[in-house]
Amino acid sequence: MTEHDDRQARFDRGMALLNEVSGGIGPAVVESLADVSPELGHQLVAWGFGEIYSRPQLVPRDRQLVTIGMLTALGGCEPQLRVHVNTSLNVGLTPAEIIEAMLQAAGYCGFPRALNATNVAKEVFAERGLLPVDGAQ
Amino acid sequence: MTEHDDRQARFDRGMALLNEVSGGIGPAVVESLADVSPELGHQLVAWGFGEIYSRPQLVPRDRQLVTIGMLTALGGCEPQLRVHVNTSLNVGLTPAEIIEAMLQAAGYCGFPRALNATNVAKEVFAERGLLPVDGAQ
Amino acid sequence: MTEHDDRQARFDRGMALLNEVSGGIGPAVVESLADVSPELGHQLVAWGFGEIYSRPQLVPRDRQLVTIGMLTALGGCEPQLRVHVNTSLNVGLTPAEIIEAMLQAAGYCGFPRALNATNVAKEVFAERGLLPVDGAQ
Amino acid sequence: MTEHDDRQARFDRGMALLNEVSGGIGPAVVESLADVSPELGHQLVAWGFGEIYSRPQLVPRDRQLVTIGMLTALGGCEPQLRVHVNTSLNVGLTPAEIIEAMLQAAGYCGFPRALNATNVAKEVFAERGLLPVDGAQ
Amino acid sequence: MTEHDDRQARFDRGMALLNEVSGGIGPAVVESLADVSPELGHQLVAWGFGEIYSRPQLVPRDRQLVTIGMLTALGGCEPQLRVHVNTSLNVGLTPAEIIEAMLQAAGYCGFPRALNATNVAKEVFAERGLLPVDGAQ
Amino acid sequence: MTEHDDRQARFDRGMALLNEVSGGIGPAVVESLADVSPELGHQLVAWGFGEIYSRPQLVPRDRQLVTIGMLTALGGCEPQLRVHVNTSLNVGLTPAEIIEAMLQAAGYCGFPRALNATNVAKEVFAERGLLPVDGAQ
Repeated sequence: MTEHDDRQARFDRGMALLNEVSGGIGPAVVESLADVSPELGHQLVAWGFGEIYSRPQLVPRDRQLVTIGMLTALGGCEPQLRVHVNTSLNVGLTPAEIIEAMLQAAGYCGFPRALNATNVAKEVFAERGLLPVDGAQ
Repeated sequence: MTEHDDRQARFDRGMALLNEVSGGIGPAVVESLADVSPELGHQLVAWGFGEIYSRPQLVPRDRQLVTIGMLTALGGCEPQLRVHVNTSLNVGLTPAEIIEAMLQAAGYCGFPRALNATNVAKEVFAERGLLPVDGAQ
Repeated sequence: MTEHDDRQARFDRGMALLNEVSGGIGPAVVESLADVSPELGHQLVAWGFGEIYSRPQLVPRDRQLVTIGMLTALGGCEPQLRVHVNTSLNVGLTPAEIIEAMLQAAGYCGFPRALNATNVAKEVFAERGLLPVDGAQ
Repeated sequence: MTEHDDRQARFDRGMALLNEVSGGIGPAVVESLADVSPELGHQLVAWGFGEIYSRPQLVPRDRQLVTIGMLTALGGCEPQLRVHVNTSLNVGLTPAEIIEAMLQAAGYCGFPRALNATNVAKEVFAERGLLPVDGAQ
Repeated sequence: MTEHDDRQARFDRGMALLNEVSGGIGPAVVESLADVSPELGHQLVAWGFGEIYSRPQLVPRDRQLVTIGMLTALGGCEPQLRVHVNTSLNVGLTPAEIIEAMLQAAGYCGFPRALNATNVAKEVFAERGLLPVDGAQ
Repeated sequence: MTEHDDRQARFDRGMALLNEVSGGIGPAVVESLADVSPELGHQLVAWGFGEIYSRPQLVPRDRQLVTIGMLTALGGCEPQLRVHVNTSLNVGLTPAEIIEAMLQAAGYCGFPRALNATNVAKEVFAERGLLPVDGAQ
């Protein structure tokens, strides 16, 4: 991150990164917010990805492990979890690792949160032809 | 509030206020609970509106800002948030103010909660012909 | 619980108990997780029911009161609450007691959580022909 | 509850019940709020106890099971949990039953919430000379 | 916000605003994070205040109502709530309005969250010689 | 995990692993629960570590990233977070990676949760002579 990145530069950097890790959903996210909260769309991209996610202190794979933990714990974030299960696969987590992170969540957040997260993962895996999960036993 | 308001008086006062600020949804709320938990319907109206919301220490517009903050933070309260986005518009908050409250929520509750709340607001605004939001840029 | 119960014994004990209190949903739960997270299904049954729920320190009816309180407070656990409203009826809680627990939740978790839980209960009661709730007034 | 209970009658009924189940903490609660939020103190007593807790649909022992579940799940409610562990003992729950409810919470809210609640219970039990807990093994 | 504000300009703008509304705590916040997470300190100031709070769509008084609602609902945010009760007073909310927002929280988040928040407010009010709260009855 | 591991074998396996990753706190955890909830202590060790954490699908370093995410998101779990910051260091996460995970939490759970977690990390780092954090800028 340079000291002289302006608003548009941050957005562009964030969009490039968001597209890379998510498989191209960036424009759709921004578009869906364009008529109701364009600043939320801007900040999600420019700040969330352009300033935070782009930092080299954690690689994307590691960020996704943290994020799966957070979204599972929060509850009620199924749409965001769906995006992040896809992203997790894109950046190198295996289905078995994602599932294992959610199994561990049973001990820290309880079974209901773990089950809800696992059901989201199952839907994503089904869409991507990844069922049954290899090595989850 | 008089010292001698009885159960029915509190309910009547609450129902009048609920109808005024919500645009008339009071009877439907009470009706939907009538066969399962009539006391919950009674208390929502008689206590929530007849005793608390009716106090003059905060005007309805201010109460709605607090409520949008609480419902966004709690998560999983989309049905209630829908009612309160409508109520917020009814008591004088503009769409841009509602959206800005939810943008601020990104910093206090995180983007997933802010996004879920904004999506509820978008649906309400669409129903009321308020899209695109004026002044949200 | 014996000191020498192995993995399969715990699962069998849990499945027998889960089926008894839930009215036979055990196999469906395990089956739905079989291709995505078989270990989560195993542990839900073998640990949640075989090791914890089966302890005699609380009878099933009392466990369900605690569970209704927890699931209502957590929010976003409507699928699990649906199972546990059914289970609560199966182990001896009356509809009026279930509804009263959710009314009390209004004071500890707020009305939105109480309303969401009550709506789940209403759906279950409707399916089982238990509306209107007797004695909830 | 009569149809003609006024504000003071509800408060008096709530205070009598709160004192009965909590072992006399009612006046201290109201007093601690007197100079900052007297209405919150009034409503906690008059509504929480005078209108909700006093309903006969659940006996106090059962209400406490629900409340322990809710406060454990919410997290960050250690002061209130302390009151309610004491109240639970006063209305007939045994230490082993309270501890078992918190053990069950491990499966629904995760171990951190269960541990925090159990630590509160341990403090209360120590003050009342109830350690070691009989029958918790 | 200009299109060409760079990293330092955002920080400076945020720090000026944070100091103005909070009564000068900005440097202490940044300093306390300097040796552990300087980027968190930077972003709290540069993004939270420089980019979001500084937007004109909501005046500071209104932002504080939303924030009190969010922090009360989240729970476990007593340190942040302490800052924001002070800030709320600085930007024009009266003690009675702050207290009323927390009373309303009883209905949306339950009494435990409302009590914890009110206790924080009481401490701040005591430090600033604002007890007893005028007009809270 | 063998199919014939009994209760004591699971506990022993969990205790060995807990001690290894946490730097020997296992016996203290079990001891602190011995007189109030020995079963909670047993299950934390035998199930949480002996059955879940010991699975090879995620290495300890990865489990800790998930756990830091969950504990930060839950809030009110400072004692557990303290243990897990220590454990994270023990299994190979650097202070800068831990801090970065908590910075990312600002975007998913909001700044208050991120700040509370970072303050816990700062205390642990100070005890271990790891301040200032290298590479956190």
